[in-house]
Amino acid sequence: MAGNKITDRDNALFEAGIKLGALYHQFTGSPVNLRTASSLEQAIQESISVQPFVESISVKIDRDLLKSKLNSEFGYTELQGPMLDVKITVKYGSSRVKVAMEFDSELNYPLMKIESLE
Amino acid sequence: MAGNKITDRDNALFEAGIKLGALYHQFTGSPVNLRTASSLEQAIQESISVQPFVESISVKIDRDLLKSKLNSEFGYTELQGPMLDVKITVKYGSSRVKVAMEFDSELNYPLMKIESLE
Amino acid sequence: MAGNKITDRDNALFEAGIKLGALYHQFTGSPVNLRTASSLEQAIQESISVQPFVESISVKIDRDLLKSKLNSEFGYTELQGPMLDVKITVKYGSSRVKVAMEFDSELNYPLMKIESLE
Amino acid sequence: MAGNKITDRDNALFEAGIKLGALYHQFTGSPVNLRTASSLEQAIQESISVQPFVESISVKIDRDLLKSKLNSEFGYTELQGPMLDVKITVKYGSSRVKVAMEFDSELNYPLMKIESLE
Repeated sequence: MAGNKITDRDNALFEAGIKLGALYHQFTGSPVNLRTASSLEQAIQESISVQPFVESISVKIDRDLLKSKLNSEFGYTELQGPMLDVKITVKYGSSRVKVAMEFDSELNYPLMKIESLE
Repeated sequence: MAGNKITDRDNALFEAGIKLGALYHQFTGSPVNLRTASSLEQAIQESISVQPFVESISVKIDRDLLKSKLNSEFGYTELQGPMLDVKITVKYGSSRVKVAMEFDSELNYPLMKIESLE
Repeated sequence: MAGNKITDRDNALFEAGIKLGALYHQFTGSPVNLRTASSLEQAIQESISVQPFVESISVKIDRDLLKSKLNSEFGYTELQGPMLDVKITVKYGSSRVKVAMEFDSELNYPLMKIESLE
Repeated sequence: MAGNKITDRDNALFEAGIKLGALYHQFTGSPVNLRTASSLEQAIQESISVQPFVESISVKIDRDLLKSKLNSEFGYTELQGPMLDVKITVKYGSSRVKVAMEFDSELNYPLMKIESLE
């Protein structure tokens, strides 16, 4: 057991959580349609990648869900949590963790979770 | 005088204000550095362009100001209002207006203003 | 006709749009439930009231819609545009305008509109 | 050593990070002055408290720093990271962690950190 001393693993997980929380609350709400989804994906990826301890990041916006949410009058919608599929690898000292956010249809919730620890 | 009837001009100006307020409060706070500024500019432009009545939009991030704000330990900063130079043309019915946001160094404020009316 | 000279009325409408766009993109996405909705309403009202030219503002979160969106596992949701009912009075020089945002069920859209001009 | 199995402690730290990242990127940028700071503190506290696994939260806005940032023309500023002093206790299963964000003047950075583990 690790005890009460804070380890690299602890910090890696804490930092990984920060990145997902930041990404979600910075970028959801952004106006988006099918034509502009890829520039938004790219900007989100690059933006979060500059934060400390991010080794890699992938951001995908679900085009089918996006399409289903387009307003019929105005032809766009907002980026919503359930549209996001995100994977982030964080490295802190000797520890590397992979975390993800994806829509959990059972919980009806964009679930953030730890995928693996090294 | 236009009286109390709401005109295309009125709506064009109202809509133009909405876009600038939206842009500012959606995207300031985004992590950014010199390498990622252009993808953020592009995404902001494209995102706001999907909103109703936007005819054209240009978004520039001031690289010199960005550079001066980079954290010396972590090498990035956040997008801040004073870094933004934005021009938007809104067309509503028969009326076209150009509005802008740019840093006003005298007021020390990222000032939004009406540039021209047609 | 007002011509191409920028009037107080033009600026009042432009400023009113800025406030609604800012409010929407700053505060949607905030975690909220029935117990916390009133502190969020109050904070949004007070926050936007400090911006230039705001004479008065009222912000209401639709409790029925909020309740219907609560996640069944976690008991909360996010503030979404359709939940917001906002009225703002802006005064610029000699001109006073009232604008509003409320959910338009026909357009399925949180519509921002000019209500009256003085 | 804990191995590659994901523990309550891992999840508690991950969740704590999510909350701090969310808080920061949801609420920085909010217009604020000395009169409205307390309603904003209250709303941020209550908003983040509804998220899963939050046992307690305290949010303070540094009034001296806020005062020093007020725009001299318009009498308000925006909530900025360095103004925030946040403490959050997260409980996940058998594990409780305390995390904090406060301005680190040496790093010139609003530092998020793990304070203690149980």
